[in-house]
Amino acid sequence: MVKLTDVAKLAGVSATTVSRVINNYGSLSQHTKDKVFAAMQELNYQPNSLARSLQGKETKLIGVIFPSVSNPFFGELVSLLESHLFAKGYKVILCNSAENKEKERAYLQMLIANQVDGIIAGAHNLGIAEYERVGLPIISFDRALSNTIPIVSSDNYTGGALATEALLKAGAKKIVILSGINQPNSPTTERLNGYADTLKAADLQPITAEIDFHTAANIKALKIHQLLVDQKPDGVFCTDDLSALLLINEAQKLGLAIPTDLQVVGYDGTKLIQDYHPELTTIMQPIDDIATLLIDLLLQRIKDHHVALQPRYQLPVKLINGQTTR
Amino acid sequence: MVKLTDVAKLAGVSATTVSRVINNYGSLSQHTKDKVFAAMQELNYQPNSLARSLQGKETKLIGVIFPSVSNPFFGELVSLLESHLFAKGYKVILCNSAENKEKERAYLQMLIANQVDGIIAGAHNLGIAEYERVGLPIISFDRALSNTIPIVSSDNYTGGALATEALLKAGAKKIVILSGINQPNSPTTERLNGYADTLKAADLQPITAEIDFHTAANIKALKIHQLLVDQKPDGVFCTDDLSALLLINEAQKLGLAIPTDLQVVGYDGTKLIQDYHPELTTIMQPIDDIATLLIDLLLQRIKDHHVALQPRYQLPVKLINGQTTR
Repeated sequence: MVKLTDVAKLAGVSATTVSRVINNYGSLSQHTKDKVFAAMQELNYQPNSLARSLQGKETKLIGVIFPSVSNPFFGELVSLLESHLFAKGYKVILCNSAENKEKERAYLQMLIANQVDGIIAGAHNLGIAEYERVGLPIISFDRALSNTIPIVSSDNYTGGALATEALLKAGAKKIVILSGINQPNSPTTERLNGYADTLKAADLQPITAEIDFHTAANIKALKIHQLLVDQKPDGVFCTDDLSALLLINEAQKLGLAIPTDLQVVGYDGTKLIQDYHPELTTIMQPIDDIATLLIDLLLQRIKDHHVALQPRYQLPVKLINGQTTR
Repeated sequence: MVKLTDVAKLAGVSATTVSRVINNYGSLSQHTKDKVFAAMQELNYQPNSLARSLQGKETKLIGVIFPSVSNPFFGELVSLLESHLFAKGYKVILCNSAENKEKERAYLQMLIANQVDGIIAGAHNLGIAEYERVGLPIISFDRALSNTIPIVSSDNYTGGALATEALLKAGAKKIVILSGINQPNSPTTERLNGYADTLKAADLQPITAEIDFHTAANIKALKIHQLLVDQKPDGVFCTDDLSALLLINEAQKLGLAIPTDLQVVGYDGTKLIQDYHPELTTIMQPIDDIATLLIDLLLQRIKDHHVALQPRYQLPVKLINGQTTR
């Protein structure tokens, strides 16, 4: 069976270029188009996708790429994406990309091969160049994937500021931020900026601790234990709720009373946390609004590949007061 | 044997139209599609899979139907299913069926219409008759869907017995089981049987409390609170870990010390619970083995629709001793 890559090889162009010709997307010279069409004819290449795109037929499938639905935040977000997409006649192809570049690449190639109508991605194993190359509808959650891919986030800066203000107001003086590895361009790094600016305005020194998001929980717990021993903070802003739960467990092992000796604020505020850990003070992301906006933007771009979208969309966050702050 | 033309006649459309619906080809109104699906169901029409595979027309898509990936147990199971299926060249179409018959039906129709190669289902909104009618590869997790659909489960009976024995050994005398609604034919009802038989062997009386699985957590918490007040148990076997967490929270509100006044055993033992609630004594389901076996059986049946499979496959469970039992 003739493949798109065979066409590309014969025409002497990339697979992406063939895909663009098929989908009539992007600016291509007539010369290139002619070469591709000639190769397609010579090989009798009849992709479903060609027939489909000539008829304007959609697959009604959306690729959804997140680190893993076993993480409660992504589990809830993907669950909402699936529900809202189903209501609009779309089905979800699920990709857990965690730490697997090849897998993320395979899903992007599906898009290039026109097997899904669009992608919603919150993963970031691959470089921006690979996302640039796709050139078809993608909307990102909380990740800088490419200059042409709009990003939907919660208002990470305000979230970081709100968390830090809550700790300051409750009397904490030595406030540590515990986060994943902060990439310079990542939207989540704004949580750090909101934290640092708020501390500086109060003449206090930021103290940052970074633990890679993918670290196993038991290793993360050991590192948190050491952090508490070394730094002796009286307040910690954890940029995700699960790390906050680990921190609380480790604090208890050290005999630290919460919130008397140590105050803690998390981030995410999933339904799981609100239902099963209502004691945790946290910053709640509007997960349902995030899902709705991601889908709205993606469907706009599927309908019209050239629709003008903003580079960034930020949705408001809320402080949920629990018993881990005074 | 029912032919495509029979379907066409009953639906009052042409054979070409039926073919187009089956292959999801061309533009068809929802009304037409619905008529054709209804006729296919009524006649139990099974599109010719042999012809399809001769044409190399496998979709390499597997439908995965569970209540919701926002539930940590299903989130972990679906995450593992996706990873293992990806390694075998399949992609996952995700369906969160929670309390939505129409949605579950729509996904089954996809299967009938030959848009996925098979389905792994752990949902049960629909009657057995609707699953009987599908007649194509489905493997079930923990649900009796039809006599012809194999069921993979953890060893629910032994799990119930182990949990109850742990509570007895730790000295509990008034042991309540807190579960979802027990259906007579459901594999999970075996947890109740394991509990009841173990208590009876110790000359104790079973006390059952049932709360519908889909009940919102805050309402469930109220019911659990009342249960603790009314029954004053000294041991509770919760047939899922999240209910155990709610129970522990409510017990603490009532000033009950755990495990001194009240001992608790959960069920599921997800990675999330082991990482973030290592204090909970629970029965661990072998989630990775469950995922592996579900896929192995499904791929066997996709390869050969008539392969002989057992009606039930049960995988061993383990007691994880935490600090909620003595």
